[in-house]
Amino acid sequence: MHSLKEDFQKVTQSTSLSEFQQTPYGPHPSDFLSNVNKFELIDSTLREGEQFANAFFSTEKKIEIAKALDDFGVEYIELTSPVASEQSRKDCEAICKLNLKAKILTHIRCHMDDARVAVETGVDGVDVVIGTSKFLRQYSHGKDMNYIANSAIEVIEFVKSKGIEIRFSSEDSFRSDLVDLLNIYKTVDKIGVNRVGIADTVGCANPRQVYELVRTLKSVVSCDVECHFHNDTGCAIANAYTALEGGAKLVDVSVLGIGERNGITPLGGLLARMIVSCPDYVKSKYKLHKLRDIETLVANAVEVNIPFNNPITGFCAFTHKAGIHAKAILANPSTYEILNPHDFGMTRYIHFANRLTGWNAIKSRVDQLNLEFTDDQVKDITAKIKKLGDVRPLNIDDVDSLIKDYYHTVVISSEEGSEDGETTAIESAASTAAA
Amino acid sequence: MHSLKEDFQKVTQSTSLSEFQQTPYGPHPSDFLSNVNKFELIDSTLREGEQFANAFFSTEKKIEIAKALDDFGVEYIELTSPVASEQSRKDCEAICKLNLKAKILTHIRCHMDDARVAVETGVDGVDVVIGTSKFLRQYSHGKDMNYIANSAIEVIEFVKSKGIEIRFSSEDSFRSDLVDLLNIYKTVDKIGVNRVGIADTVGCANPRQVYELVRTLKSVVSCDVECHFHNDTGCAIANAYTALEGGAKLVDVSVLGIGERNGITPLGGLLARMIVSCPDYVKSKYKLHKLRDIETLVANAVEVNIPFNNPITGFCAFTHKAGIHAKAILANPSTYEILNPHDFGMTRYIHFANRLTGWNAIKSRVDQLNLEFTDDQVKDITAKIKKLGDVRPLNIDDVDSLIKDYYHTVVISSEEGSEDGETTAIESAASTAAA
Repeated sequence: MHSLKEDFQKVTQSTSLSEFQQTPYGPHPSDFLSNVNKFELIDSTLREGEQFANAFFSTEKKIEIAKALDDFGVEYIELTSPVASEQSRKDCEAICKLNLKAKILTHIRCHMDDARVAVETGVDGVDVVIGTSKFLRQYSHGKDMNYIANSAIEVIEFVKSKGIEIRFSSEDSFRSDLVDLLNIYKTVDKIGVNRVGIADTVGCANPRQVYELVRTLKSVVSCDVECHFHNDTGCAIANAYTALEGGAKLVDVSVLGIGERNGITPLGGLLARMIVSCPDYVKSKYKLHKLRDIETLVANAVEVNIPFNNPITGFCAFTHKAGIHAKAILANPSTYEILNPHDFGMTRYIHFANRLTGWNAIKSRVDQLNLEFTDDQVKDITAKIKKLGDVRPLNIDDVDSLIKDYYHTVVISSEEGSEDGETTAIESAASTAAA
Repeated sequence: MHSLKEDFQKVTQSTSLSEFQQTPYGPHPSDFLSNVNKFELIDSTLREGEQFANAFFSTEKKIEIAKALDDFGVEYIELTSPVASEQSRKDCEAICKLNLKAKILTHIRCHMDDARVAVETGVDGVDVVIGTSKFLRQYSHGKDMNYIANSAIEVIEFVKSKGIEIRFSSEDSFRSDLVDLLNIYKTVDKIGVNRVGIADTVGCANPRQVYELVRTLKSVVSCDVECHFHNDTGCAIANAYTALEGGAKLVDVSVLGIGERNGITPLGGLLARMIVSCPDYVKSKYKLHKLRDIETLVANAVEVNIPFNNPITGFCAFTHKAGIHAKAILANPSTYEILNPHDFGMTRYIHFANRLTGWNAIKSRVDQLNLEFTDDQVKDITAKIKKLGDVRPLNIDDVDSLIKDYYHTVVISSEEGSEDGETTAIESAASTAAA
């Protein structure tokens, strides 16, 4: 890590790092409510994630995932309601007994029957949820706002009496009446909940709307605000970030975002967003180099592949292809990278074996092969590579063959007595290009 | 489509549709600049998408993709620069000759050498780009802002003289000096470009920052604003939406978001976002039921799988699992769905074969099997199903076996002379649950 930073400083040369850091993509100075620099994570892989179509977690797998999340550094781990099934209750108790650093939560309906079971499991806190939108009030539980408020008060006071944390959340918050919402949040805040939650249960929210709701909510309650965003319209990461800007403090995530339908804010994707804004905080709190392992663990458990375009761990997240990009990346990786792959134990890759390649990328490859070409010779072989790349897909061996043929037929014959560079050729393209 | 709407109205019954439509997730009335209701798409699958690590498009494949995009309804199709390679130029000419409804663009560096080749290909417009950030000015082209402005003026006047559309875009706009940016945009707007573009080349931008930049830019230029967002930090869809709110009119997309690194705003994901805000506009302009075909076409061409969590077309985008969700979905799909799967030629699926299932979901399955159970009997068999679901993953056949066993051993013996419901059992769970 240290040597890498030195490399970076070396290539930036005349321009100081601090000058580059004065960029406008961090926390906004006018956001006095912002918690972008001090957010916390509630990982719900073992609750929301269990609602993913493919999820069936055995007790052993749940424990393995909980330990991995705890080691990674998440502040909270949320588990399926103990009333969902008999084994759900036993698994909840088993995970509580692990004595993890992370606090263990379970997620229940706003109902005394559920609360009585939940507080006996050994959890550090209970997350209570009830639908407040017209849709849910009409088609799910059929209760009015007074009934909701009274149930909430009873459950909250009961859970508090047991000395454990309590969160109250509405469900489908963004299709709920704003006055209803603020009323109930104000009520439960007065009783003294640890957190209130807003939930975009159907994935309809957009960022500016999230910002407005969270900021308004923060003017009404004194407790922390937690947020939960579904990803149906692809905004779950951005909505979570914007909620933090507006004053939310805790974000519900799951590994790879697994959950109902296409899921919620993904752990890795959110950290990609957050590390851009507060790199020191993120690096100090989470073991980022274990992200790929934890994603692989969960992907295998629910039998999915890590998406090709996944932030950070997608197979091409740090692959640069166009010639114009490769040229600049070779001079300074920050030109086309906002994330440093080394922060996540990943490596950068310059894709030079294609028709969009440029002579800077090929020059870098020639250097890796330890061959000596003039710039004109590199441009000449680059033209030949692009020509072949027009005809068919190329791989590294194709390009290396062309380079080596050119070396033997053109470069050597234009010199006298050059040494054979092939014996020290580096086979992997990834390593030196990453410097 | 028509009968579906009738179904929907039937289940909503007492509450009118218009009442539910008064929800706060549409365009914001205070956004007088918003183009959320009148955006246009520039599909860059054949330019940005060609920079995706796995992409190698033959001429035939390019033509197939261009025709599919045109049929789908995108307003513009952007192609790789004709100077990238000899075949790139020939392919550009071939696609221009197809006489598609969509306008054909090509994307070049801000340089007369590139412009001279581009205008001869037969394109309807040229997209010019140059790096304006300190990073790109130092490590890519090495030019200062005066040089950039002068190059831009020369290229723009040349392209305009040929009677075709011209867009001028900065690259890495969100790490560029704001005054430099506004200066150059104001200059090119005066010359008379069709569009100026902002590009989040490294994927660092966040939504509120996008909104501020676009709104400021709109106060400086009179032409349209185009936006281009990379997805490194998972905000490409939200940033595009927020840009439209701030007054941008055109969004660069690609099928499945393919592009450099983990790509850009995806066509399908953006339309998921947009259909929530302006359903009539989106449905009138784009053949949404062909989305899955076009995604499959491109996924096959670049040899990737459609991500499990892809908006709309991910395998579980419309799968509902938790019992509490299934109950409400059966009463009214809008309770837990902001997107209607039928708009995209997809179907809803209630996942009832698991330990999180509820008795409403099982009752629906009993009805599908054309069996007669009392509510108490359904609750009884639901408990048995949840118990087995605690032990191992279940599939539909497992649940159906349990239901049928229960029917023969309990239900029939509690009645006299009931008919055999199994002969009309429906094998697929998807169809009736979707009503």
